[in-house]
Amino acid sequence: MTIRGYVFDAYGTLFDVHSVVEAGVAITADPVALSALWRQKQLEYTWLRSLMGRYEDFWAVTEAALRHAVRRLDLTASEAQLHTLMDSYLHLACFPDVRGALARLPRPRAILSNGAPSMLDAVVRSSGLAGELDHVISVDHVRIYKPAPAVYALGPQTLGIAAGELLFVSSNAWDVAGAKAFGYQVAWCNRLGAPEENLGVRADYVVRTLRELP
Amino acid sequence: MTIRGYVFDAYGTLFDVHSVVEAGVAITADPVALSALWRQKQLEYTWLRSLMGRYEDFWAVTEAALRHAVRRLDLTASEAQLHTLMDSYLHLACFPDVRGALARLPRPRAILSNGAPSMLDAVVRSSGLAGELDHVISVDHVRIYKPAPAVYALGPQTLGIAAGELLFVSSNAWDVAGAKAFGYQVAWCNRLGAPEENLGVRADYVVRTLRELP
Repeated sequence: MTIRGYVFDAYGTLFDVHSVVEAGVAITADPVALSALWRQKQLEYTWLRSLMGRYEDFWAVTEAALRHAVRRLDLTASEAQLHTLMDSYLHLACFPDVRGALARLPRPRAILSNGAPSMLDAVVRSSGLAGELDHVISVDHVRIYKPAPAVYALGPQTLGIAAGELLFVSSNAWDVAGAKAFGYQVAWCNRLGAPEENLGVRADYVVRTLRELP
Repeated sequence: MTIRGYVFDAYGTLFDVHSVVEAGVAITADPVALSALWRQKQLEYTWLRSLMGRYEDFWAVTEAALRHAVRRLDLTASEAQLHTLMDSYLHLACFPDVRGALARLPRPRAILSNGAPSMLDAVVRSSGLAGELDHVISVDHVRIYKPAPAVYALGPQTLGIAAGELLFVSSNAWDVAGAKAFGYQVAWCNRLGAPEENLGVRADYVVRTLRELP
């Protein structure tokens, strides 16, 4: 089917959330475990707060998740060290395939992300991707997180293109399920060769890097 | 404040979901890891399906989570072995403090659980707890999972007692947050001494076993 525009997930798809590992070295001998638990709790809190009807923005959720992870792993971190870890979210590295792949795809190209507007603004600027993107859309407008349909509806609304003519691209298998359930064409960028999530819907395309996108 | 009735979470609070470890021995040298990932995915799928508006009952979700966990851990399991693992959910062990604690508390006492009605019926019967309970309430009536407010509303509706006069008891910290946000008095039975979840609400009581309940 025709693709008239591209909508990208940000965290985990364009930007490597595990870039925070570098800052984690200051407080733990196992920064990979800290990063994994932090990310897990960050996602859990978005899902739980959405179901509870108690939205807080992604900066607040990310900080709450970090504090829980530090405590659960029995680590000690000063406020300055926590600040440094949070700050790394504003300067996450792009995956190496991102820039070339974006430039090759026809416009419009958009981000649709859980991130708070100020977080997205910072990471898009620091990564130098601003010129490659036509829209940066935050869930903050609807005050609920993925995979709620109200979030995915922001893509067609903003781009003025039906979901079925947009290709939604995510590395997060659960986000792939949410976008597909909503009605997008969906590509799962499965860089790590993970098994799919059993949520009753499947991606239209599975690619290993963004370079393989149709 | 007065407590006029008790509402218990089932899985993880009355029944030990990690009873499945025993059946897991047949397919893995690390059944604890299988049990942990299975439980994690089971919960994730309830949250994700609820947000997507794609409810499937807890039996289907539990099986989908098991199949994902087996694949993700690179295990091999026959259909008969998967069946045995699923079947263990119908005969989960009670935690040792449950029976004595329930008998000591004034009635009414209810379960409010994610479980499908047939699953709850089986596990309540096999554990011999049926006589101790006045109501066994399943989220299946509202086709959405905890921590959605529509689930917690089933307690006051069924018992005819306001949420603020009911004590909701759960070992799942995120369930504690959901029940408290809804308006119950809440006790967190924190058997493992876990840190609380940072979801903006706190339990009224924290106990280490159900014997300490007010």
